[in-house]
Order: sequence, then C-alpha cells, then structure tokens
Amino acid sequence: MAQPQVSFLQTKLKPGSFLDRKRQVVQENTLLYQLDVLKQTGRYDAFKLGWHDSYTDEPNHWPVPNHLFWDSDVGKWIEAAVYFLHDHKNETIENAIHELVDMIRSAQQDDGYLNIHFTVVAPKERFTNFRDLHELYNAGHLIEAAVAHHQYYQNDKLLEPLVKYVDLFCKTLGPEEGKLHAYPGHPEIEIALIRLYEVTKNPKHLELAQYFIDERGNPTGQDGKHFYTWEAEKRGERPYERPGYYPKPKSYWYNSAHKSILEQDSVEGHSVRSMYLLTAVAALDKYRKRDDYRDALKRLWMNMVDKKMYLTGGIGAISQWEGFSIDYFLPQGTDDGGCYSETCAAIGVMMMAERMLQFDLDSRYADVMELCLFNSMLCGMSTDGKRFTYVNQLASSDTDPDKKAAWYTCACCPPNVSRTLGFMSGYLLTTSKDDTDRTANINVHVPAAATTTLDVGGKNVELQIDSNWPWDGAVKFNLNSSDIKTSVAVRIPEWAATNWSMSPKPDSPDIQKGYLRLPTSFTSINTSFTITFPMASRFIAPHPFTNLNVVALARGPLVYCVEDVDNDWVTDHFRTLLLDVHSGAPKVTESQIKDKATGEDFIMLHMDDHFNFMKLDDQATVNGVSPGVSGATQMGGGKMPSFTLPSSGSATTNGTAKKEVKTAEGKTVDRLNFVPYYFRANREGKGHMRVGIRIGS
Amino acid sequence: MAQPQVSFLQTKLKPGSFLDRKRQVVQENTLLYQLDVLKQTGRYDAFKLGWHDSYTDEPNHWPVPNHLFWDSDVGKWIEAAVYFLHDHKNETIENAIHELVDMIRSAQQDDGYLNIHFTVVAPKERFTNFRDLHELYNAGHLIEAAVAHHQYYQNDKLLEPLVKYVDLFCKTLGPEEGKLHAYPGHPEIEIALIRLYEVTKNPKHLELAQYFIDERGNPTGQDGKHFYTWEAEKRGERPYERPGYYPKPKSYWYNSAHKSILEQDSVEGHSVRSMYLLTAVAALDKYRKRDDYRDALKRLWMNMVDKKMYLTGGIGAISQWEGFSIDYFLPQGTDDGGCYSETCAAIGVMMMAERMLQFDLDSRYADVMELCLFNSMLCGMSTDGKRFTYVNQLASSDTDPDKKAAWYTCACCPPNVSRTLGFMSGYLLTTSKDDTDRTANINVHVPAAATTTLDVGGKNVELQIDSNWPWDGAVKFNLNSSDIKTSVAVRIPEWAATNWSMSPKPDSPDIQKGYLRLPTSFTSINTSFTITFPMASRFIAPHPFTNLNVVALARGPLVYCVEDVDNDWVTDHFRTLLLDVHSGAPKVTESQIKDKATGEDFIMLHMDDHFNFMKLDDQATVNGVSPGVSGATQMGGGKMPSFTLPSSGSATTNGTAKKEVKTAEGKTVDRLNFVPYYFRANREGKGHMRVGIRIGS
Repeated sequence: MAQPQVSFLQTKLKPGSFLDRKRQVVQENTLLYQLDVLKQTGRYDAFKLGWHDSYTDEPNHWPVPNHLFWDSDVGKWIEAAVYFLHDHKNETIENAIHELVDMIRSAQQDDGYLNIHFTVVAPKERFTNFRDLHELYNAGHLIEAAVAHHQYYQNDKLLEPLVKYVDLFCKTLGPEEGKLHAYPGHPEIEIALIRLYEVTKNPKHLELAQYFIDERGNPTGQDGKHFYTWEAEKRGERPYERPGYYPKPKSYWYNSAHKSILEQDSVEGHSVRSMYLLTAVAALDKYRKRDDYRDALKRLWMNMVDKKMYLTGGIGAISQWEGFSIDYFLPQGTDDGGCYSETCAAIGVMMMAERMLQFDLDSRYADVMELCLFNSMLCGMSTDGKRFTYVNQLASSDTDPDKKAAWYTCACCPPNVSRTLGFMSGYLLTTSKDDTDRTANINVHVPAAATTTLDVGGKNVELQIDSNWPWDGAVKFNLNSSDIKTSVAVRIPEWAATNWSMSPKPDSPDIQKGYLRLPTSFTSINTSFTITFPMASRFIAPHPFTNLNVVALARGPLVYCVEDVDNDWVTDHFRTLLLDVHSGAPKVTESQIKDKATGEDFIMLHMDDHFNFMKLDDQATVNGVSPGVSGATQMGGGKMPSFTLPSSGSATTNGTAKKEVKTAEGKTVDRLNFVPYYFRANREGKGHMRVGIRIGS
Repeated sequence: MAQPQVSFLQTKLKPGSFLDRKRQVVQENTLLYQLDVLKQTGRYDAFKLGWHDSYTDEPNHWPVPNHLFWDSDVGKWIEAAVYFLHDHKNETIENAIHELVDMIRSAQQDDGYLNIHFTVVAPKERFTNFRDLHELYNAGHLIEAAVAHHQYYQNDKLLEPLVKYVDLFCKTLGPEEGKLHAYPGHPEIEIALIRLYEVTKNPKHLELAQYFIDERGNPTGQDGKHFYTWEAEKRGERPYERPGYYPKPKSYWYNSAHKSILEQDSVEGHSVRSMYLLTAVAALDKYRKRDDYRDALKRLWMNMVDKKMYLTGGIGAISQWEGFSIDYFLPQGTDDGGCYSETCAAIGVMMMAERMLQFDLDSRYADVMELCLFNSMLCGMSTDGKRFTYVNQLASSDTDPDKKAAWYTCACCPPNVSRTLGFMSGYLLTTSKDDTDRTANINVHVPAAATTTLDVGGKNVELQIDSNWPWDGAVKFNLNSSDIKTSVAVRIPEWAATNWSMSPKPDSPDIQKGYLRLPTSFTSINTSFTITFPMASRFIAPHPFTNLNVVALARGPLVYCVEDVDNDWVTDHFRTLLLDVHSGAPKVTESQIKDKATGEDFIMLHMDDHFNFMKLDDQATVNGVSPGVSGATQMGGGKMPSFTLPSSGSATTNGTAKKEVKTAEGKTVDRLNFVPYYFRANREGKGHMRVGIRIGS
C-alpha cells in the first residue's frame, strides 16, 4: 500500500461534494493567498540568500529565530501546490514553483548544505543544535516538496539538490565513529526520508530514517551522554539556561526523546513532534515489521486517545510546550486551565492513524482519523481559505477569543492544511492488488463521495462511492471490477455501530475490528449496495476523570459548538450555560442552513428546552444545581472558598413543561443554536464559543 | 492592638481543651524532636561557621543551595521555643537557646553581617542575589526570634546582633543614591522589621520595612531597570538562564514583584511569599493607614478567597512555583492537574487575616483564618508532633500518597507550625482598652476555650470563654470587668449565620460585618451569656467554575475527608466514588471516636447510603451517571476520546430504598466513614485520601 500523498491520485473526490468544495477553496484562494504572504513576508526570496531585516529580531522563543522555519514554509507551499496541479493547471503557481526551485538549487552550498538561516545568518552554527534549531525539520519539508514535485513533473530539478543534501547528512550523522549521533529535535525528516526512499530506492535513505528513530532517546548516545546534553555542553550552554518550552532543564520529553520510543508508555511533550515521530515509526513498519515498535505504537495510541485527546480529536492541553499534559487533563480553554489542540497536531494524528491502518485495519484508527479530519483539521482554515487557526480551543475566553488569523510568525499550520486537502482523497481509502492473481482489495475508511480506480494487470477496477458525507449517512457503493476479484471492507463508524443498515445485506455480516468485510463472493454478485449510518444528533462527553462535567452535541463525524453569532445573548463565553441531560431527553432539532456571509451549507442543531443558566450572584449554586433551600450561603466578596449545601437540601426538579429561561442580564433565551465545530470563527462575531456545555439544571 | 505574638500572653488556653492539647504536643514532643533534628542535620552547629559536607551538594532548585535556609530553621525554632517557656520551663530547651544565641553572636562579622552561607560558602556573593538567595528572609526569621527572645528574657543578647545586622541593611539598602534599591525575593523581613520597631521604636526599622514594600515591583528601580533584572545582569546571568520555579525568564510575578502592590489585582506566584508580603502590608497599616494599600489588600484578599483557595483554606495549585494558578483552577491532587496548598501558606493566610482584622473587623477574615487554623495548618503536624506535611493536597494519588514526613530538606513548615501553636491564643481574640476612660473592648474571633485578661488602669478585665470548640457549638462567656466598661464582639461563623442562638439575647442583636456587637449596656447587666452555633454536618462545594463537580463534608470549622484506614475497600484514592446529593438528602450520622493508635478524640461522620461507584469498565458512564440505556458506547482501547450518551437517554433514578453498592473489585460497601482533614495521614494506611467526592448517582 502506498502513502496517501501518492495514492490520492487514484481516488477522485466527487465534484461539488463537501470535501471537494473544501479542496477547491485551497485551489482557488488559499494557494495564491499563501503565495502572496510568502512574498510579502520575505519568505519567497529568502533562498536568494540575501539579508532580511527580520533576521536580527529578538526571537519569540529563544533560541529559535523567528525566521528559522522559512525553509519549511516554502517547502510545504510547493508540496501543497503540486498536489493541486494534477487536476488543475495554474500558470501563476507553476511559475512560482519553478522560480522557487531555481532559488533553492542556487542556495545549495558546494558540500550539499541547504538551509537559509545557517547559510545567511549563522554559518558557523550549522549542526550545533539539533535539539532546537530545526535543520533536519526544514530539510524534511524540502524533501517532501521534492518528492511531490518529482511525482508531478517527473524530473529531478528539486529532488537532485535534496538528495545531495541527504548525502551530506549520511556523511555527517549516523552510528559510525566520527559521525554525530544526532537526531532531530522536531521529527519530520524521518517521514520525508521514507517517502524519498520510495522514489530513489536508495537504502541509505531508509537507513537514515531508521537510525533517527532507533537512536532517539539514547541516554549515552554521544561520549556517554544524551546527545542533547552533549551538544548543549559543546555549545557552552549553562545547565540552567534553557528554552521557554522546557519547564525544567533537560526536559527531553518535550522532544519525545527522554527515552527510547520502545520504552515510552505515554505520549509526552510537543504534540506535533510526537505525532510526526510516531507517523514515521508506523510508516517504517512496511519495511521491517518489528513487533516491539508495533506494540509501542499501539500503547502510545491508546494512551493518547483514551487519556489525552479532546472531543474534537485535538491533542495538547499545555501552551508552554504546545503539547500533552498528564492523563485526563483536558480543560476546554484558557479560563479552565489551558487547551492548545494545534491544527498541525490534528493533522499529525490523521497521519499516524493512516499509517497504522496500513498494517492494522482497525476502525479505532479510522474513527479518530475522521474525527480529526472533520473537526480539528478542517476548522484550521476559514471557508474562504484565507484565514487560519493554530490553536483550536474547545471554549473561548476574553484572553483567547474564538477567531481565525491571517497568518502566523510560526506559520506551520496554514500550509499544512493546504497540503492535507491537496491529497485528501488519499485518506479516504487504502487499496491493494495482485496483478498476477488478478485480485484487489479496497478498504473504505471515510465514505465521502469519491471514485477510486485501480489498474490490476491492465484491467480497471473502479469503486464509486456516492454520498452526501458528512451530512447524510446513506452511502451508495458501485463496484466495476471487470473480472478482477475485488473484496471491499467498509468501516462502521463507532457512533453507528449498533444501528447501521445495508441493502442488499450479507446473510451474516462479517465485521472484524470495526470493518464490514465484503468478500468477493458478495461483491461479485452485489456490485451495487447501500450502507446507511443513521445521523441523528447525539450527546457525547469526555471521560469522567477529566472532571469536566460537560456534554457536547455531535452528529455523524461532526462535533458541534455554540457560537455567539447564533446565540447573541451570550456575554460570558457560555461559561454559565447549563444543559440538563438527566431529567428526560433534550430534544434536538435540525435545520439546513445556507449561511449568507460565507456561502457555507451546513446543518444547524437546535435545543428549545433543557437548558438554563447558573445563578451565581443571587443564590449559591453547586455544580450548576441551585440548592433552592434557605440555608445556602452566598459566595463571593472574599467570604469563604466554598458554597454550603443545606444538609436538608434536595435538587430542584425540572418539569417537562417549558419554563422561561433568562440570562444573568435578564435576557430571555428561547433556543440554543449549534454549528459544526469546523465552521467556528468564520463569521463576524464577538469571539464566544464552546463545545462542551456544563451539565446542570 | 498588639500583634498576636505579643498579645497571646494575655490569653490562656483552657487546660485540656482541643487547642491546648495541640499546643501541649509541641511543648512535650515537637520542640525536643526538632532540636534533635537541628543537631543531626548540621543546622545546630552551623553558626559556628565550620564546614559541612552538604554545602557542596547539587542544589535541588538552582541557584538555591539546599542549606540556604538553615539560619531561618534555627531562628524559627528559637522563636517557637521561647513562646512555650512563658508557661513551661524546660532546661534542655533553655540551654539550647543560650548556646544557639551565643553561636549566632559569635557568627556576626565586624560590619554586622550575619549569614551562614554567605560567610562560610560564598563570602564574595553577599548582597548579589536578592531575588533568589534568601539573605533578607533569613535575617527576618532571626529578627523574629530575637524579638520573641527579648520578650521572654527581657535582655538584648539576641536582639543586639540583629539590630546591628539591620543597621548594615539600613546602610546598604534604601532609596538614597549609592544604596542598592533592593527588596527581598522572599518577603518576611518586612514582618520582622515591624515587630522589631515595636520593641526598639527606632524609626529606621519601620522605614526599612516600608521601603521594601513600596519599592517592590518598581520597573525602573536600579539604573532604569527592574532591580532583579539589574542584579541578574550584574551577576553575569544570561537572559535564558533561570531557576526552575520561573517558567519563563523574568517571571517576577513568582515573587509578587511584577508590579507595585498597589497595581496588583490578583494574588500571583509563590503563595507563601505573597502571604508574608501582604501580612506585612496589613501590619504596616497601624502606622500609616493608607487607603490605597487597604484597597489593594482587600482586592487581593477577595481574589484569593473567591478564586484561588481550596475548601480547606489551602492556597497554591501549582507545584513548580509552589503557588497560585489562574482563577478557579483548583484541582484536588496530582492526578487532577495539581494541588500544593503548602502548610506555610495556610499559616500565611492566618497571619494576613489576623492583621486585616486589626483594622477591619469583618468576619470574612476570621472565617477564613479559622478555616486555615483547623484544617490546612493543623494537619501540618502529626498527633504526636513528630511528623509533618509540607504539601496538603485534597486528594492523594499513587504519585503523591497521603502521608506525613519526618523532616524536609527545605524545612520551613515544621517549625512554622510549632511557633504558630506557640502563640496560638493570640489568634483567638483582639483587645483594646483606654486606661483613662476606663473602657475596654474584646473581639472574639474564634470561640475556643480560653481566658483573656486585660489590665485597664490597674484594674483587671477578664473574659472567660468556655467551650468544647471545634466539636461543640455551645459557647459560654463569663465577663468579670470590675467597673471597666467592656464591650464584646463575637464573630458569627459563616456556617452558623442563619441558625445561631443566644441566651440571654439582646432585644435586637446588632450584627456588623459578621460580628455580634454586645455593647456595655448589655455586658454590664449580662456578665454571663451563652451563644450556640449549631454544628450539624453540612455539604460544601467549590465554585462551579472550578469544574470539580464534587462535594465535601464539613462540620463546624472542620472540613472532613475519607481515608483508607476507615474505608478499607479503597484501591483508587476514592477517584470513582460518587455521592448523590441531588436525589434527596443523604443522611450523615456521627460517632465520638477515641482513636487507639493516636489517642486522638474526634467526631467521625458516616454515610450509609446515597453513594455509589463509577462503572468505567463494563458500561459507559458520563459524569458519573451511567446512561443505563443501550446505545452507550464503551470507552477505552484507543477507540474514541468520548463517551456517547444515547439521545433517548434519561437518568437512572435512585430510589430511597437502600441498594447494595459494590466496588469495581466486587467488594460490598455499606458505609462511608469521614475523619477531620487535620487528622489525615496519622495512622498506618495505604495513603488514600480525598476531600471532595464526585457528585453522581
């Protein structure tokens, strides 16, 4: 099975379908918008190796110069852009690609070295700080760009300098004596080297990726010391001098480098670094199938999903190190103790999940991959493709209002969304075939509308998936397999596991690890079939150990949120809003919306009762439940750190008759309106948003 | 009004009463135990200025040598010890005091300098790091020892060297050009200087305290720079070199020195430093009565109590800086995101509250002072007075089990409890008098059994308070005022505000700011009266914005907890225990216990129903409420980061008939047993404890 950046070419999104429209936005707006930003900010011309005034700016995060990622910004834009050229020519974009490639080629030093900062700004510091300074990360993104460029242009114009650069790494880094036993502080090049190997078939490329993975966390890697300790001492760093993202000296868990991956039991530190690393480990499985690494991958996946993932699929609670906190610490926003959930991290989860599916077809990976796709990843870009998010909190605050931004100093996320949408169809399904046996297999992970085509020994196998995913759960499959025996496996989403239906249906459906396996005996007779995953809205909640005491609304793969635009009475980021999910079922209704401001089509959800507001000022409230009996003590004014529940207290009961609900300011609220999380912060608003609503009555 | 370290002499605890017994333990066990520890660890002999092997140990918290606090450990022990000498001679202790005083005198340098570390270990670094290195903090504790020593011995043997040391400070530090515009990284000397002034009446002593307070946080204090920035640069520190407790460079909020106290809106950073600073500001009010400082004190008090205080009166959620987090972030233990609640910080709250009461007789201060006294402070010492706590979490975990320890490297807390109990009766009430007018006033803050005596123009005024506080709410007052007109004010505790009673009772009780004011017209006729504060157990809960969704049991001033010793089925630190406080009132019963292991008399609380356990393994559970309907999704195994509540779900109802409750391991649990929080970790146990129990059914 191929990586999705390659396999996407065999699958075409249905024109006008939801994902296709999202992809079109990138093609029509984002690529040109981002190109413009690259030019305006100096990134575009940076490979000319001239000076830029910003090069001497005080770094936002010492010791990382703000311009350090410019190589990768350019690389990711090129990579994204070529994915779209396959089905849509664009002269402006092609000219820019050619010019950038020429500049990159001209920026290469005689020995193969290729990095803006370490050529222009700090030429003596090359290879002295693998922990912080992103040399290998930047190289990784340029390699990925080169691989994608090669795939489209079928020439080596960009591949050649990158292969030469990798040659320099192979000479400088590795297990042999005299080489640096280094590995990147920010994994990424491992993914890139595996992709490069798949083009070059040069075993050194695969071996270097493998070395970076196996050497990582070695406590005695260089001269008996952890490599990052060794190189810090060599730089003359003092023991208590450290980056802001290291809460303590030697916080190598930030880099997932505190011990060998094989010894790690929990995902730690910077979320994106962790996901990129584990994606590479999973991708490497294709070539070495080591059980110990598979076990580590599964163990770390389980720790992450069960204990460190938000309802939206987002990961990372802590801003200081852009990453994971302790188990079950998942506050929704800044006011509650933090929430980071970086867009790139959600993309990283998708990447890891996709690689896991390649050797373990289990819906646990696809369920989460889809969750990230339709929520944390998609909300990373505005409907017009010109504004972006970096942090994806589940609740806004005055400190961090809900909004999208035009660009970032550290601009990793915007082009990451672009390239992800570029090869989006590669995430929907995986295929395998045997040209000799004339057999094929298609695993459908996300049943979005698309057609996939396989050449099996000169014959075409085509699977058409027709659906209005993620809005409608009815999915029509049409298989045209010539005489190629083609089995199909379709993921049954976790939220539809007990109520999906199918027509025609196998006599005894064979479900293995969450996938409905349709053998050739079925597909050869039933070339068309429909599976329906009912899309009623449902309440979801985080693990009780998170202490959140909230519920959220979801519908199909989409998680919903409340925003001020549709709930104009809100003044407190919905912090005092209560949903009563215990006294009978709240009724949720739907309406089909075509938003005027953005043109977005979506389903809005509504609740007309079972909600209320905490009364904080006029009466004590415990856990959102007003004791409602005399003896309750008022809070505030520095009196006591507690409310008192009267010992004779009993709950106020909530009848089914609709009662008038008023905000603290006295505004009557008739209805709550929910929009999909991906759609948040797209309209002019006050920046109030929340996913999980407090339970109470 | 005098400070409590002075006024305690006029109030005698009733022999055998609760607080008297706690004080007796210190007198009988703790002082000698701690003296022994001082000797064994090298602290006792340190003022001889010899070398100790530990002086070259790697610091636990750079740049703070582990022995840096030894001066203060000795100072606090002396201070504590002399408070007990007033009513109980002890030759061993007195000999030690004399020997220590001689050693301290002999350790003083010719210019007055007096510090172990900077004389023996780093003589060239004197006065180079006020931010981290505790020179002034150590001096403060020695001054407090000297003041207490002078009060008892009525000689200057210890006062003299300290006055000389303060003279050196006055010459070196201050607003004048050529002096260092420094102030202590850890406030304490301000409190000490005010106490010193009250003995010496030397205005320079008061002025120096005032200078430290007013200069604090000045952004341009020295050569146009913040003093801590200036001195760090002078030390040659690099910008990103910083102590572990500074999450970012220049985290001066850690020291409450990020801006002027007058500009601060919230308590920040290290809790003990904050409380010691604000105590000094409040104590200084007696001499300058500045409205701007009073406003700041009230503002910061309210922020702390309303938004940053635990149910036990503890403060500080974050271990890294031993201090405050953001508003409403008050997790109960390590597994929930942190909890620090240092013993010294609770003592600091008591100190601040007591000083506030001196100019603003408001029960909000006394309520919290009493809460700290009977919970966070008292639990800092074991019943036998030989083991201590530093951190006082509200829930244990495998990482941080509930336990007490024999000693600490940084041993601030144990002698702090000793000295607090030494002058304990000074916290119970404040008095004022007019010898000429022959009037007196007594404000009773905590109605523990005690007798206070005032000399008013040669006549005795005596108020006897007889009670079994904190167990029984009936308090008898007997006033013998000769012919001195004596008004009495008695605090009505917040938890008894609506149901206290009195006999005889004034016709129209005059309650001002939570104090029942009994004018001389009442007290001259009713020299004996009884006030009863009903002590039924009650449920208390933290602010809903803490997201904790828990309730705790309290009774009178005591907060309760569950411990494994009395609930031997527990295996998970009571993390899955649920209390149902919404479906009718849980009945709480009491029993009088005399604990065999410790000899402690206390009231245990019991609940025989309205509790249950979260079912995490066999069925989805949201917020502790099992949906109980098919369609709920299992969690775990890396499947999804959410539970699904079926949209038709309704709550399981909890009948009043008693049902059998079993733990996850299948053990039947008939009863929950609660003990006072102060009593936690006194018996052999497994280290499982929790205050706030999750709400659920």
